[in-house]
Amino acid sequence: MTTPDADAEAVLATNQAFYDAIEACDLDAMTALWEQSGRVSCVHPGWTILRGWEVVVESWERILHGPGQNQFILTNTSVTVAGDLAWVVLDENLVAGGRASTIASTNIFTRAGDGWLMVVHHGSPVMSR
Amino acid sequence: MTTPDADAEAVLATNQAFYDAIEACDLDAMTALWEQSGRVSCVHPGWTILRGWEVVVESWERILHGPGQNQFILTNTSVTVAGDLAWVVLDENLVAGGRASTIASTNIFTRAGDGWLMVVHHGSPVMSR
Repeated sequence: MTTPDADAEAVLATNQAFYDAIEACDLDAMTALWEQSGRVSCVHPGWTILRGWEVVVESWERILHGPGQNQFILTNTSVTVAGDLAWVVLDENLVAGGRASTIASTNIFTRAGDGWLMVVHHGSPVMSR
Repeated sequence: MTTPDADAEAVLATNQAFYDAIEACDLDAMTALWEQSGRVSCVHPGWTILRGWEVVVESWERILHGPGQNQFILTNTSVTVAGDLAWVVLDENLVAGGRASTIASTNIFTRAGDGWLMVVHHGSPVMSR
């Protein structure tokens, strides 16, 4: 039995691991933190919706094995745990190719054994403030 | 006790009511289908994240009472129900001011009594296909 605080901390740790995997271009780490099922979806900023693990992992393979390098400063992170699901809302302040931008992100996680797995990532470019 | 299929149908009906409220510029209908709490968030396409009901409803007031008129053709809608939470992923094919565009959208709902309330809306412009 876990406490609500422990759940929130575990979700936030998985959320952080997601951004660490992108920064490290580590496809194995990225793969390990997703639920590998047909119900997952992923929206990269400006992209159409990718549905199902096979399509989602292909996109991460292209991104993580591509020439780009991303660094994130994560701000305004909030987490909500509701039973066996949780969602995190945050700003990804992204430095890529010498340019800075902000991505608004919603990430959904599902409880899996002792931990949590990502089921939805939705990132979108912030074009005005 | 509801069946999984009945839950999915009820979530999809609430999701449809969300788009109907936008098309009808009906702030009362929009207000009725959100959870009015601090944990809700809303990302309009290209906007920064709006957090908490007071901020979210202010944005809907501006949008629904503004000069714009939106019409949606919703496609590729998928729904996942997991206990007392559910999420819907879909393409909003939007006709506004004579121009067509696609918005990738993730909507999260929470069970509330016999129905469902929206807790997260995240829409983002699709810039490539």
